[in-house]
Amino acid sequence: MTVEMIFVGTELLLGNIVNTNAAYLSEKCAAMGLSCYFQTVVGDNAERLSLVLKTAMKRADIILLSGGLGPTEDDLTKETAAKVCGKKLVMHEISKQAIQEYFAKKGITPTDNNWKQAMLPEGCIVLDNHNGTAPGVIIETDKTKVVLLPGPPNELCPMFEESVIPYFEKLTEQVICSQTVKICGVGESQAETMIKDMIDTQTNPTIATYAKTGEVHIRVTAAAEDKKAAQKLIKPVVKELKNRFGNSIYTTDDSITLEQAVVDLVKANEFTIACAESCTGGLVAARLVNVPGVSEVFKYGVTTYSNKAKRKVLGIKKPVLQKHSAVSYQVAEEMAEGIADFAKADVALSVTGLAGPDGEGDKPAGLVYIGCCVKGETVVEEYHFSGNRRKIRESATAAALILARRCLLEYMSKVTFGK
Amino acid sequence: MTVEMIFVGTELLLGNIVNTNAAYLSEKCAAMGLSCYFQTVVGDNAERLSLVLKTAMKRADIILLSGGLGPTEDDLTKETAAKVCGKKLVMHEISKQAIQEYFAKKGITPTDNNWKQAMLPEGCIVLDNHNGTAPGVIIETDKTKVVLLPGPPNELCPMFEESVIPYFEKLTEQVICSQTVKICGVGESQAETMIKDMIDTQTNPTIATYAKTGEVHIRVTAAAEDKKAAQKLIKPVVKELKNRFGNSIYTTDDSITLEQAVVDLVKANEFTIACAESCTGGLVAARLVNVPGVSEVFKYGVTTYSNKAKRKVLGIKKPVLQKHSAVSYQVAEEMAEGIADFAKADVALSVTGLAGPDGEGDKPAGLVYIGCCVKGETVVEEYHFSGNRRKIRESATAAALILARRCLLEYMSKVTFGK
Repeated sequence: MTVEMIFVGTELLLGNIVNTNAAYLSEKCAAMGLSCYFQTVVGDNAERLSLVLKTAMKRADIILLSGGLGPTEDDLTKETAAKVCGKKLVMHEISKQAIQEYFAKKGITPTDNNWKQAMLPEGCIVLDNHNGTAPGVIIETDKTKVVLLPGPPNELCPMFEESVIPYFEKLTEQVICSQTVKICGVGESQAETMIKDMIDTQTNPTIATYAKTGEVHIRVTAAAEDKKAAQKLIKPVVKELKNRFGNSIYTTDDSITLEQAVVDLVKANEFTIACAESCTGGLVAARLVNVPGVSEVFKYGVTTYSNKAKRKVLGIKKPVLQKHSAVSYQVAEEMAEGIADFAKADVALSVTGLAGPDGEGDKPAGLVYIGCCVKGETVVEEYHFSGNRRKIRESATAAALILARRCLLEYMSKVTFGK
Repeated sequence: MTVEMIFVGTELLLGNIVNTNAAYLSEKCAAMGLSCYFQTVVGDNAERLSLVLKTAMKRADIILLSGGLGPTEDDLTKETAAKVCGKKLVMHEISKQAIQEYFAKKGITPTDNNWKQAMLPEGCIVLDNHNGTAPGVIIETDKTKVVLLPGPPNELCPMFEESVIPYFEKLTEQVICSQTVKICGVGESQAETMIKDMIDTQTNPTIATYAKTGEVHIRVTAAAEDKKAAQKLIKPVVKELKNRFGNSIYTTDDSITLEQAVVDLVKANEFTIACAESCTGGLVAARLVNVPGVSEVFKYGVTTYSNKAKRKVLGIKKPVLQKHSAVSYQVAEEMAEGIADFAKADVALSVTGLAGPDGEGDKPAGLVYIGCCVKGETVVEEYHFSGNRRKIRESATAAALILARRCLLEYMSKVTFGK
């Protein structure tokens, strides 16, 4: 079964935003065994969108469109798709009510153009939007299924997972299952080299690697007549990956994130965790807070971006800052120990570095020191990240979580084996 | 003059990588006044690439292709483009030499397929690649210019800036300029309603709205014979937008972000800022730290996710937390004043709320209280955000910055006018 994607939005053609929906939908469709040969980006223009949609409908079984479902005049994806498929737009009472409730909850009075979002193609399948006001739509024609999704990723992704995947599962004749082995602290090319023989000989299951910041995800995908049979095909491959990557694998569960894995280790030890951040400025804390229920173990996070805050809160002495500068092994060590002490936390993370764009003196942008203190024992590592300010901060945040995991595992190994 | 873009690579169709080249090239072309109506992603497949290229050549003056110039069998962009344009591939001696030197420098012996990269379409313009081995190529046909660029962004971007921009500057006849008016605290449909008459009658300049979390950006774009003339067309439209949105506009400068606008106000008053976060868990601090040089004014950020941390660091008394619960007007107020006092900061922000997925007792997920204390005077607002945990936290983070801006402006107005 083939899928073709159309991304609608003048903001994409003008380069205002990066098309992350394309990568997201492509990965999801590939995992479901759908072949995608073409993707098109087109502006908010009825004539051109119509042309692109008609072309796509001639060559694919499923058309995924994203964007242009908003309430404004610009948004004409639904109107255009309905016209191309020969469907009228009619008021969908349930969607109208949902929009009403959405605005009531926000205490805002909807404007006239908000109701435009409840006008849907007759006979379509309506996909609930729990994160915005534009419902998704599936128009079924004799030959093609046309799926309209909202443009904002925080609306598109949950809608795709909640409604579109189950719909596709019914359409496709075989069940496709996949499992993701998530690895941290190993580079993408290194990971690929380690499994080159497996990739070269893959048929079913297939093996694909995805590079994430600080992580590599290896997805194993099997096609079979039912879920059980697919999982049976996946199992030995995952076992082999475990043999090869050992402790670098932090989970084989798709829903577990790196921050969740760290919090789970903290909880398993009945520990608490705290962090002190400089260049990451709250991003480590924010990732820990991604984990629901983290308040049981996450005691405290501080952003001590200025030297004064480092002195006052973390008790780092002025001579230390002057002698070594804020971006140094020593300051990372004292930050970790300072916040552990202040928060009375069993585990403490610290990050100090230069996020750029400029370096400082002989220290280049991208130089970051990360400290991790577990029960009074502190490890500091030096990192050299590349990229822009944002990339460096994201890399440092991931590295801090990876270091916390490593130190926690080392601590547990010592306690268990008395090493 | 119109440009159309074709991105070649099966890895894009599989979602292995995000197409950042698209956003980069789109923005550059828009800034040069080139109109782009279509972009296509296609795999490393000669037949499909040929189809896409022929279609594009029928409708655009310039075709930009990226990817598929590498040395492997998969890479067939150059071969396909040459064939479509009716050109033979011939050995380009200078490129051959450059490849030889590149490998000599790295101490690697080139393999046979590396020489494939020096086989170029006869009569083409060769674009030097200082960051890799694949030269870029411009094929000029009677009607169309076909520009082939390497896929890796670190090769594509410098090549585009060094060689393609100067080439385009010679080709284009008119200049397009745009300016973005950034608004906060006004919803997208409300904003659109407020300028519906302007949008309905737009010709040149054009007006487009873009929804961001907590913000709306209105882009005004004009076409003219030169930059000065285009800017002259834009000026009265921006003035009218200023009349309509007044203080809700936080900038008319494309490069200024909301966090930058807040930091600028803090700096203008010679103030310092601190924040205490619960459900946002460091995201407010992280956005402030986005601003280069913020350490001058950003004293301190804390993530007091647990009640114990709220008591210990912010001095919130147990009875207050027990009586009102952590997610309350009173706690937001005491958090803001507590962190202002602790950090000796002029401006203090606090966020406490329920990011979900679950509510607590009678308090639903999405309920957030945000406090802002400016020079001892505290304002607390109640918000009801919807969406998943991430969306709620992002919305709360934007709302905190917007509240800080509002309170700072109110403070400045009082000081200036003695209201």
